[in-house]
Amino acid sequence: MSKSTGCCRDFLHYVFDYETPKTLVIPSIRVGFVFRFTQLLVVLYTVGYVCVVQKAYQETDSVVSTVTTKVKGFAFTNISDMEPRFWDVADYIIPPQGDHSFFVLTNLVMTPGQTQSRCAELPNPSTTCVDDCDCVEGYDDPRGNGIRTGLCENYSSTVKTCEVLSWCPLEIDANLPKRPLLAAAENFTVLIKNSITYPKFNFHKRNILPHINSSYLKTCEYSRKTDPDCPIFRLRHILAEAGEDFQDMAVKGGVLGILIDWSCDLDWWPGKCRPKYTFRRLDDKHPDNNVAPGYNFRFAKYYKTPEGEETRTLIKAYGIRFDVIVFGTAGKFGIVPTIVNLGAALSFLSLVPMVADWFMLTCMKKRDLYSRQKVTYLVEEPQTESASMSTTYGTQ
Amino acid sequence: MSKSTGCCRDFLHYVFDYETPKTLVIPSIRVGFVFRFTQLLVVLYTVGYVCVVQKAYQETDSVVSTVTTKVKGFAFTNISDMEPRFWDVADYIIPPQGDHSFFVLTNLVMTPGQTQSRCAELPNPSTTCVDDCDCVEGYDDPRGNGIRTGLCENYSSTVKTCEVLSWCPLEIDANLPKRPLLAAAENFTVLIKNSITYPKFNFHKRNILPHINSSYLKTCEYSRKTDPDCPIFRLRHILAEAGEDFQDMAVKGGVLGILIDWSCDLDWWPGKCRPKYTFRRLDDKHPDNNVAPGYNFRFAKYYKTPEGEETRTLIKAYGIRFDVIVFGTAGKFGIVPTIVNLGAALSFLSLVPMVADWFMLTCMKKRDLYSRQKVTYLVEEPQTESASMSTTYGTQ
Amino acid sequence: MSKSTGCCRDFLHYVFDYETPKTLVIPSIRVGFVFRFTQLLVVLYTVGYVCVVQKAYQETDSVVSTVTTKVKGFAFTNISDMEPRFWDVADYIIPPQGDHSFFVLTNLVMTPGQTQSRCAELPNPSTTCVDDCDCVEGYDDPRGNGIRTGLCENYSSTVKTCEVLSWCPLEIDANLPKRPLLAAAENFTVLIKNSITYPKFNFHKRNILPHINSSYLKTCEYSRKTDPDCPIFRLRHILAEAGEDFQDMAVKGGVLGILIDWSCDLDWWPGKCRPKYTFRRLDDKHPDNNVAPGYNFRFAKYYKTPEGEETRTLIKAYGIRFDVIVFGTAGKFGIVPTIVNLGAALSFLSLVPMVADWFMLTCMKKRDLYSRQKVTYLVEEPQTESASMSTTYGTQ
Repeated sequence: MSKSTGCCRDFLHYVFDYETPKTLVIPSIRVGFVFRFTQLLVVLYTVGYVCVVQKAYQETDSVVSTVTTKVKGFAFTNISDMEPRFWDVADYIIPPQGDHSFFVLTNLVMTPGQTQSRCAELPNPSTTCVDDCDCVEGYDDPRGNGIRTGLCENYSSTVKTCEVLSWCPLEIDANLPKRPLLAAAENFTVLIKNSITYPKFNFHKRNILPHINSSYLKTCEYSRKTDPDCPIFRLRHILAEAGEDFQDMAVKGGVLGILIDWSCDLDWWPGKCRPKYTFRRLDDKHPDNNVAPGYNFRFAKYYKTPEGEETRTLIKAYGIRFDVIVFGTAGKFGIVPTIVNLGAALSFLSLVPMVADWFMLTCMKKRDLYSRQKVTYLVEEPQTESASMSTTYGTQ
Repeated sequence: MSKSTGCCRDFLHYVFDYETPKTLVIPSIRVGFVFRFTQLLVVLYTVGYVCVVQKAYQETDSVVSTVTTKVKGFAFTNISDMEPRFWDVADYIIPPQGDHSFFVLTNLVMTPGQTQSRCAELPNPSTTCVDDCDCVEGYDDPRGNGIRTGLCENYSSTVKTCEVLSWCPLEIDANLPKRPLLAAAENFTVLIKNSITYPKFNFHKRNILPHINSSYLKTCEYSRKTDPDCPIFRLRHILAEAGEDFQDMAVKGGVLGILIDWSCDLDWWPGKCRPKYTFRRLDDKHPDNNVAPGYNFRFAKYYKTPEGEETRTLIKAYGIRFDVIVFGTAGKFGIVPTIVNLGAALSFLSLVPMVADWFMLTCMKKRDLYSRQKVTYLVEEPQTESASMSTTYGTQ
Repeated sequence: MSKSTGCCRDFLHYVFDYETPKTLVIPSIRVGFVFRFTQLLVVLYTVGYVCVVQKAYQETDSVVSTVTTKVKGFAFTNISDMEPRFWDVADYIIPPQGDHSFFVLTNLVMTPGQTQSRCAELPNPSTTCVDDCDCVEGYDDPRGNGIRTGLCENYSSTVKTCEVLSWCPLEIDANLPKRPLLAAAENFTVLIKNSITYPKFNFHKRNILPHINSSYLKTCEYSRKTDPDCPIFRLRHILAEAGEDFQDMAVKGGVLGILIDWSCDLDWWPGKCRPKYTFRRLDDKHPDNNVAPGYNFRFAKYYKTPEGEETRTLIKAYGIRFDVIVFGTAGKFGIVPTIVNLGAALSFLSLVPMVADWFMLTCMKKRDLYSRQKVTYLVEEPQTESASMSTTYGTQ
């Protein structure tokens, strides 16, 4: 025969000769049972736990969201050191545009009629003085309220303090009302509109569910039990759900999280994908290991006097900041995670025979018989025959 | 020989004797073909689908981003019930600092000269009255506009309503202009600067691409076709891309999402990682199953009269809130996901022989021959217990 | 025996006969060593790299966070073209409520006393005119500052420009102070409160760590070396860490990121889960391929004259916007990822015998001997015997 055909045939043999392991059949119920049982365990784990419980066959995407909020309600305050006043949304919601985070004013220290001028510092160990020598001109004490002019003035009939250049009169935030000014705020309601997207799955949804009609929305109020789908929340209820008392929290303010969980299994009917609301206080109310507890900030309204001088009303606003935090992960069947998990399970199946073999060769009465027939030991023979091997192959 | 050496040799045997399966070679093209073909399928799937299509060999990170926006443009309004007025950025952008979310005022109901005082309620079934008895003092109707004083006053020559203590005059937002006040806003442009980070890969990038020069930026305007890299957007164009008509949406306002997708394959040249802009209306414009459609909020400008009385101009602002939503996932070659996916593929390869065996032992003409030579049955040897085995089996 | 029992027995055989591969033991140290060594490598990789380094046995969750910031400090400015002025938080922090993003005013162009009126345009090629014919009435030049009235007025004694209807006088932002107005801002401090949640693991934590007490918080200041846990940052220090010079950046403003990394391994003691602060400038300071470098925005304070005319003070605010960006991924032992990774490793172990076989049959001196005893070639035989097959089976 020609050489080329020989090569060709060898190649064909190399590629298409199928090499399959020789096997030995053990007709033993016990070994067979151990084998099948172990197999069963692995399969059960894969199907039961990985697929059903953990949904490991799904690929996931995290939520992209936008939020609009709108607060409703008004309050009337009539306390000693302030003229009677009516408050509406424009007064107590800061910033006004309803973003994912809105602040409800509940308490404040107001310092009207401040102007750029000079006045005596608030008395404290570092500001009290006897004469001008105690007050270094131009020195700005970080704990103070302005730049010192170098003079020592009467703060009151009894005490003298250094004069400062600042917005005067200075703010005195020591006597913060113990009872929140806008106690009525607990009855305000907020409408939360939240629309989400899972970009990877091109899935869009709103927290106002399709089956809800406008007439219901005009009257409903959220309640975990009775109205879990209503997007209108009463502030008192939100705090109650978070385990806080509104009147307590309102005095010094705080941050409260409205968490919306959009975790969904998109393999099911999308209608089953609904927002879950939870409420949690986000700042720390415990005074120890804390600084500036509560939540407050200062802002000012600026005016001009008829003479054109600028004056301002400084407001130290205490209140509750509501942060609407949207999170969630959507899962949907994905070929890759499925393959990966099946593969992992398979490789465990490939362990099963080892287990069975081990059992057969150690725990069975007939283990010697089995191993004799299963395992062969290499038999040395004269090297000469090695040639014949190749020939047989050639003439095959 | 000594015992220890015996142990040692046994141990060496135990560890280093290599146990390899005995195999039978079937020189059959058909079986071989089935075997190779199945192998090919698995390999193709792995390489083709998992690696090329799904990029399952990559580990991923999600984007961290910051956004700056700056709106340009001005408008002039000259309508009957308002004096002619010129509007610039400081007037119509709220809040002023260009954050990832900015609001463009397009329509408004202005109520100037409000003061803390008393006035007759707006007439509606629950507020109209005949005499003072109909108005409970101190009662605050949630749907009303203030706290009742207990008097019944003339709202107009024809109708009497309960008097309330509130910011008077009350806002009348019934007659909202049908044509948006700032119709010219559609020609405003917004510059969006977005810089992103993939922390895990320490990858930073901006939506102003390196190859763009300042002169181009001064003149360009975004267009999916001609200028996909220009970060300056005309509002009308944004809404058009979102499938909305500016003049319609401007009347009652709404929320519009500017979605920037930064999904990148960082195994490639980073220059290929570019932002993809899409635009989508995020609020629901359909009046059914909706409440308070559109987007509006109230805010006030506070003034002081020469007598020091506080007055305010209440503005119910309708407009379009633009939310710049940045999302995306970056993928980069990772050793772990690669290993995991290869492993999964391998375990499928280990299935291939089963398939081939099954084919060989069921579909081939010579199946009996094959199975006789491949499979051996346990042969009982002259041993006492050997008989018992078979009998137990026989009498089962 | 009856047929049914026959079937039954066949079925039992089919299910419980255990088929195990026949094996050949090669008592060769070298082959055995290659086998064990390859095994070792795979195991080492799995344990060492996948588990220890990559923690691939963990499932992950990404952080959900809320931030509160509070700036402290004041400044006094005394420059030529502005009356001496004292600045406190309410003046220079915009917006006032300390959100995850706050802006510190460092430089500004103030245009007081603007009213809705008519004035001559700022002179530039497109606005200069000789007589009224050059000014088209009602034309609004995008690069201009208002709607043209059609008149040509004296801007100065030397140059005439078109008159526009706008907020007059017009803002002249050409002469921006070279030295930042609020240079003192570098000494301001900011308190950052950040509380995070990993919803999947129901893990909550704050950046004010449990072991810190309030007295420390009142005095401490962040420093990577000495006080890495103090949540109070000096602005100058933040910029220094970001590699920026405050005075430079303050002139035209910019955006600076305070990145808080909460990546945690929750399998460890949760106390080890601490925030890592890094600082990075987020906008591009290089003038080339950039537009509107720095960071600024316009806002206005509105006043009313005694005659009730509305005037405003337009402020073009330059400053530094600090974005607190919280990110991170928590990992915790998860059964599924563990199984998946073990599975992958196992399927590699199943490759080891192939390696060893290949080595044995190619690199060893005795390869022919080995292959003769390992591999058998199908031997053709007369088909008649196929019957005997079943009989043997029957008589077993």
